[in-house]
Amino acid sequence: MNTHPILAEALRGGIVESFHRGALAVVDADGRVHTALGDIERPVFPRSAVKVLQALPLVASGAADRWQLSDEELALACASHGGEPRHAATAASMLAKAGVDVAALECGTHWPTNDAAIKGLAAGGESPSALHNNCSGKHAGFVCLGCLMAEGRDRRDFLRGYVRPEHPVMREVTAALQATTGFDLSRTAVGTDGCSIPTYAIPLRHLAHAFAKVGSGVGLSAGHARAAKRLRAAAARSPFMVAGSGRLDTRLMQRLGERVFCKVGAEGVYCAALPELGLGLAIKIDDGNNARACEVVLAATVERLLPLVDDDRAFVHAMSDLTLSNWNGIEVGRLRAAEQLRRRADTPTGAST
Amino acid sequence: MNTHPILAEALRGGIVESFHRGALAVVDADGRVHTALGDIERPVFPRSAVKVLQALPLVASGAADRWQLSDEELALACASHGGEPRHAATAASMLAKAGVDVAALECGTHWPTNDAAIKGLAAGGESPSALHNNCSGKHAGFVCLGCLMAEGRDRRDFLRGYVRPEHPVMREVTAALQATTGFDLSRTAVGTDGCSIPTYAIPLRHLAHAFAKVGSGVGLSAGHARAAKRLRAAAARSPFMVAGSGRLDTRLMQRLGERVFCKVGAEGVYCAALPELGLGLAIKIDDGNNARACEVVLAATVERLLPLVDDDRAFVHAMSDLTLSNWNGIEVGRLRAAEQLRRRADTPTGAST
Repeated sequence: MNTHPILAEALRGGIVESFHRGALAVVDADGRVHTALGDIERPVFPRSAVKVLQALPLVASGAADRWQLSDEELALACASHGGEPRHAATAASMLAKAGVDVAALECGTHWPTNDAAIKGLAAGGESPSALHNNCSGKHAGFVCLGCLMAEGRDRRDFLRGYVRPEHPVMREVTAALQATTGFDLSRTAVGTDGCSIPTYAIPLRHLAHAFAKVGSGVGLSAGHARAAKRLRAAAARSPFMVAGSGRLDTRLMQRLGERVFCKVGAEGVYCAALPELGLGLAIKIDDGNNARACEVVLAATVERLLPLVDDDRAFVHAMSDLTLSNWNGIEVGRLRAAEQLRRRADTPTGAST
Repeated sequence: MNTHPILAEALRGGIVESFHRGALAVVDADGRVHTALGDIERPVFPRSAVKVLQALPLVASGAADRWQLSDEELALACASHGGEPRHAATAASMLAKAGVDVAALECGTHWPTNDAAIKGLAAGGESPSALHNNCSGKHAGFVCLGCLMAEGRDRRDFLRGYVRPEHPVMREVTAALQATTGFDLSRTAVGTDGCSIPTYAIPLRHLAHAFAKVGSGVGLSAGHARAAKRLRAAAARSPFMVAGSGRLDTRLMQRLGERVFCKVGAEGVYCAALPELGLGLAIKIDDGNNARACEVVLAATVERLLPLVDDDRAFVHAMSDLTLSNWNGIEVGRLRAAEQLRRRADTPTGAST
């Protein structure tokens, strides 16, 4: 395993208490590498960071139009949401439009990741359903696609097992991933994701390239290009649906709109598109830390790459350099992107692939 | 920053998805290094892993006898508990015995870390108090010590600000840390812990040495040796109080009794004593991961060092090599101590300090 550079660090008492190593790729739509930190050729599981790629067939197939999905619903199809009431209701609405219900979902059930949503359910004596699964929107999107593909057949029969790699729905989804990343998924490691669909190991360079394509439309089929544009617009109009209260993806897209499309994935992965620069980026934190390492690295990279007015720069900077306080509100340390990243993220390597 | 060896890894789809680097020291009571992986001389914040050292004055001062603290209460004084109802009630009981109440606690308030406890409070329309803070037992111990020291004076006046380094209570606590670790705390980095008391940066070698002393009594003052023995016995009799439902510290001590005393600390720290071997150990995961990395490393080290009957070995092994399942109960991967650790933990380096 290569030793990757330190990308984020947590300070306490004036010293580095903990730190996170990882790799970062920034690539343009032609596949040129703008920035490479660490090994960007090692295949990594992108997990939920590629939901927008997996949602392309939902739009490109005509299913989104057929079921008249709203911006909120399309944004939820790209989401790892907190299971807040609006998220669960929106997933239910997608299913209803396609003529099915929560029973069609094969993502499994877990308690919401949003604290207030947990307490809200508990206070009402309720238990979560598959609608609260952070992937329920993505799965509702798969089901909506499946309901279009099933026409003329029994929907429930057709949908059963849609999470499996060989199911016609998942084949469409995998084909979109293959087409956008340009990486041979038939010859790479395949894992099972938390929500039971396959996750394919893909190098950061290819993931960043795919997001550069999603941001620019360059290098995509006409159908995928239109779909990517529509999904990005939907996320920019309904950023709450992509993540939820207090979450970085939501806050960043609320602030910057279509200037950034970003998406976290489990185990320390982030992918993002910066359309006006024609760049895509992909991050993997070695240790899989999501809540802090990945976020400050993403924010620091956006801050360095995107031309921002002062207010916006301060807003983004505050996400890459945070004061840590304890339970009494006493300042105890800082969490920040590493010096090496801050220094190098704005220095194109110029390397070509 | 030195590059540390990989100590734990998470696998998915047959490949390593994420991994954790760190350092590990195993030291005997005379200070001889039995095992050293990574840099064991770099000072790290031990956080809550040293609560047993910080609880020594509670017993050595006579406060534990004066307030007739039970095994459960002494175990809670060494705990990072889940805020379950019995934990909160036991902290309240300690305070009541010393003639004060929750208002004396200066640890701050947070929601329990135990999921069921969160839902239980929410279902009852309740909010947490400082009794639910994972450090409430340690703080109740400080308060019990303070109530003894305050005799003849107004308790509330005396106790105020007991979390500060210069307060007589905290001076006693720091003196115990200094005496047991043998590291000059006046010349190292000092941070503020989550519960507002100071945390001092101490090398793993010194932390492991302190735990070897705690396990054997060798190298401790007579008062500290008696106190350490009593606290270890209390934890072995009431392991639920040291952590809580499903937690590793609780499960390991329930199973092995006084054969191991172990304690997790925030930001990827573990300290443990193996009394029958006269060894102490200390772990720091570079990235601060607690929930998984630290635990499998601790379990793998205990498994390698301690002579165990087959059933116990299987029990401990299952903590160092876990199957990971997703929300549908499908096996998706494994979490395990790294090969390098499994291979080297049983090979004494023989290095002397």
